[in-house]
Amino acid sequence: MSLKFKNAKRIEGLDSNVWIEFTKLAADPSVVNLGQGLPDISPPVYVKEELSKISAIDNLNQYTRGFGHPSLVKALSCLYEKFYHNQINPNEEILVTVGAYGSLFNAIQGLIDEGDEVIVIVPFYDCYEPMVRMAGATPVFVPLRCKPVDGKTCSSSDWTLDPQELASKFNSKTKAIILNTPHNPLGKVYTKEELQVIADLCIKYDTLCISDEVYEWLVYTGNKHFKIATFPGMWERTITIGSAGKTFSVTGWKLGWSIGPKHLIKHLQTVQQNTVYTCATPLQEALAQAFWIDIKRMDDPECYFNSLPKELEVKRDRMVHLLESVGLKPIVPDGGYFIIADVSLLDVDLFDMKDSKEPYDYKFVKWMIKNKKLSAIPVSAFCNAETKSQFEKFVRFCFIKVSSLFYTFIMSFLLVYKAPLFFSC
Amino acid sequence: MSLKFKNAKRIEGLDSNVWIEFTKLAADPSVVNLGQGLPDISPPVYVKEELSKISAIDNLNQYTRGFGHPSLVKALSCLYEKFYHNQINPNEEILVTVGAYGSLFNAIQGLIDEGDEVIVIVPFYDCYEPMVRMAGATPVFVPLRCKPVDGKTCSSSDWTLDPQELASKFNSKTKAIILNTPHNPLGKVYTKEELQVIADLCIKYDTLCISDEVYEWLVYTGNKHFKIATFPGMWERTITIGSAGKTFSVTGWKLGWSIGPKHLIKHLQTVQQNTVYTCATPLQEALAQAFWIDIKRMDDPECYFNSLPKELEVKRDRMVHLLESVGLKPIVPDGGYFIIADVSLLDVDLFDMKDSKEPYDYKFVKWMIKNKKLSAIPVSAFCNAETKSQFEKFVRFCFIKVSSLFYTFIMSFLLVYKAPLFFSC
Repeated sequence: MSLKFKNAKRIEGLDSNVWIEFTKLAADPSVVNLGQGLPDISPPVYVKEELSKISAIDNLNQYTRGFGHPSLVKALSCLYEKFYHNQINPNEEILVTVGAYGSLFNAIQGLIDEGDEVIVIVPFYDCYEPMVRMAGATPVFVPLRCKPVDGKTCSSSDWTLDPQELASKFNSKTKAIILNTPHNPLGKVYTKEELQVIADLCIKYDTLCISDEVYEWLVYTGNKHFKIATFPGMWERTITIGSAGKTFSVTGWKLGWSIGPKHLIKHLQTVQQNTVYTCATPLQEALAQAFWIDIKRMDDPECYFNSLPKELEVKRDRMVHLLESVGLKPIVPDGGYFIIADVSLLDVDLFDMKDSKEPYDYKFVKWMIKNKKLSAIPVSAFCNAETKSQFEKFVRFCFIKVSSLFYTFIMSFLLVYKAPLFFSC
Repeated sequence: MSLKFKNAKRIEGLDSNVWIEFTKLAADPSVVNLGQGLPDISPPVYVKEELSKISAIDNLNQYTRGFGHPSLVKALSCLYEKFYHNQINPNEEILVTVGAYGSLFNAIQGLIDEGDEVIVIVPFYDCYEPMVRMAGATPVFVPLRCKPVDGKTCSSSDWTLDPQELASKFNSKTKAIILNTPHNPLGKVYTKEELQVIADLCIKYDTLCISDEVYEWLVYTGNKHFKIATFPGMWERTITIGSAGKTFSVTGWKLGWSIGPKHLIKHLQTVQQNTVYTCATPLQEALAQAFWIDIKRMDDPECYFNSLPKELEVKRDRMVHLLESVGLKPIVPDGGYFIIADVSLLDVDLFDMKDSKEPYDYKFVKWMIKNKKLSAIPVSAFCNAETKSQFEKFVRFCFIKVSSLFYTFIMSFLLVYKAPLFFSC
C-alpha cells in the first residue's frame, strides 16, 4: 500500500478508544449498559419542546454566529455572572463548542505548543492524554491517592493529591494543568482548600488552568462546587468548560462552552474557525431558551440545576447499596453520575478471558458482559500506561439510569451468579 | 502580559476570517445580505418535521455512535452506492462530521504532515489555506484562468486549469490536491476531461485527492457532476466530502460526511475521536429520515435533489440579468448557488474607503454596504496573498434567496445610485 495513505504523525498511536471498544461489546440489547455516561432518564420536557418548536423556524435552521449563537452566549453570560466577580462579555469571553470535548480540543490546540508540558491528574477523562499528545506536548501525570480507610464505606473525598508530589510536577515548561471537578470517574468534588493549592502553583509557575466542570450542577449533600477561575489571580489564566449534555441530560446535542478572559478565548476562537467554524443553530437556540427557563427560577427546587442532583442522589445511594450487596466495594461519589467500585474482592476467575495482557478491569468488564449481561467501563482506561496497575481493580458504573435498570442489575447478578463468588467477599 | 497566554504556533496568523468581518458589517437589518451562503428559502417541510418529531424521543437526544449515527451512515451508503462502482461500507467507508468543514479538517489533520505540500486551486473556499497551514504543511497554489471572451456573457466554464501549469506543481512532496466541484465561488462544474487530467496526475505522483463536492446536486442545465473517486485508480486515494446544509438547505445543522476507502477514513476517524468525538444525534436521525424520503423518489421531479436545482436555475438567471442591468459583468455559474461578477466596470470612486491597502473588492463591498445597503463577499478572500490581485475585481453574490430580495437589490441600486456611475459601463 502507498506510503501516502499513512496517517499524519500527530495522530500516531491515538486510534484506540475505550468507548468504541466497550460500546461495541455492550451493543447486544440483552446487556444492561451501565458503562457510557448516557442518561436514559428523560431530559426535561421543556428542553425537548423548545427544539420541536424551533425546528419549524426557517432561519433557525441556518448558520449562526461562529463563536456562539447570540441568544445562547447571552444566556450563558447571564447565568455565569452569578458565580463570577465580574460581568462576562458574551462575545469575547464565551465560546460555544461541539460539546465540552470540542472546548477541550480548542483550548489544547489553541494554547499548547509542541514541547510544552501539561499536568494531568490520574485518573482522568480519557481524551485528555491523546489530545495533549496530538498537540505534540508531553502529559505529566500525577495521581489522586486514597487515604487508608478502615473497613468503612470509602468516599471520593478520601482521594487526594499530595501537595508535594503535585508541586514536583511543575516547572518552567509547564504550560497548563487540566483540572476536572466534579471528577470523572471518581466523583470527587475538590474542596476550596484543595483548589487553593492548585491555584497557588498555577500562579507561582505562571501556568494556565483548563478546568473541566461539566458536572458542576451534580453535587450531593454536604458538598459544594467551587470554580477555580474565581480564585484571586486565576481568572486571567483559566478556561472553564461546561456542557449542555450534562446540564440538561441531552448528551446527544453535543454543545459545550468555554469561559475565560478575552486574551485566551480569542485563541480558542481561532481554532474553532479553522476546524468546525460554528455549532448547530437549532440546538443552540433551544438550549438558550431552556437556560432562560431555569435562570429565572434558580432558587426554586423545581429548577433543573437543583432537581436533577436531588434525583441523582437517590440513585447514587441505591447504586451504592446494590454494589455492596453483590460483594463490590464502591467509592461513594460526592458529585457527577458515576461510581467506581473495587471489584477485586470478588476474586473472579478470569482465566478464560482471551487477552491476558489486558489490565484486570478490562478482563473483568468483559467477563461481566459475557456472564452477567452487565456492562461498565474499566477505570484503567482513565489512566496512562504507567498508572494503570494502580487502578485496574476498579470499574466505573453510570447511575443516571431509570430505576428498573438497577433492579435488572441486581437480578442479573443474583440469578446468574455462581454462589461461591457471591459470598466470597 | 504573560508569555504563557500566547497562542500556540500552529494557529499563528490564522485568526482573520472573511465571514466574521463581513457578517459583522452586514448585521444592520437594513442591509440586504447576499454575502454568506445562507439560504433564506424554506428548507423542505419534511426535513423540519422530522426534527420536530425526533426531538420528543428521549434516546435520540443522547450520544450516538461516534463515527456516524447508524441510520444516517446506512442512508448515506444506500444513496451513494448509486454513484460508485462498489458497495460502500457504512461503518468503515463513511464518517459523519460537524459539517463539510469538519470533514475537511479531519482529512487534513489525519493525512497531512508538517513539510508536506498540498495543491490548492485558486480561487478556493477560504478555509483550505489556514487548515493546510495549521497542519504545518505548505499550500501550493494554481489558478483557474479565464479564456478570452469577446463581449458575450462569460461562463464559469471559461475558467480552466492549464494542464502544464498544474503538472508543474506536483512533485514528490505533494501529499494531496484539494478539488472543489461544483466550485465555490466560481460555480464551475469540472468536466470529465478536466477531472481526468487531475486524476492522471494524482496517480502519476501517488497523491491523495480531497474532493469537496458539497454542491453536488446543484448543477444546471447542460452540465453534469462527476465524482473523481469513480475514475479508475482514484477510489483508493480520494476522500469525497458532502454536506447536509447544502443538500437540504439547512446550513445550521452543521452535518457533513467523508466517503472513502477504509485505509484513509480510519485516520479521519482517529482525528474525530480526539476532537469532537461525535455529532448531534437528533439532527443525524432527522437527516437520515429526510434522505430516505428522497432516496425513494430519485427519478421524480419532486425529489429535492432534482427540484432544488430547478428552482435555483431560475434564480441564477434572474440574478445574472439584475447584475447586468446595473452595470456589473457576471460570470454565469454552471453549479452551486453563488455568482461572481466583475465590478471594476462600474469604476466606482472608492477614495473615501478607509484602508487603502485593502484589495479593491474589499473596498468595493464596504462601499456597497454603506451606499447601497447591499452586502456581498470579496472574491480575493478566496485567494492567497500572491493571487489576490488577479481576482480583486470580482465580488461574490449568493442567489439562494427569496425573490423579494432580488427586487430589493435592484431597487436599492436604482434608487440610491448616483447616475453617472450607473451609466458608465
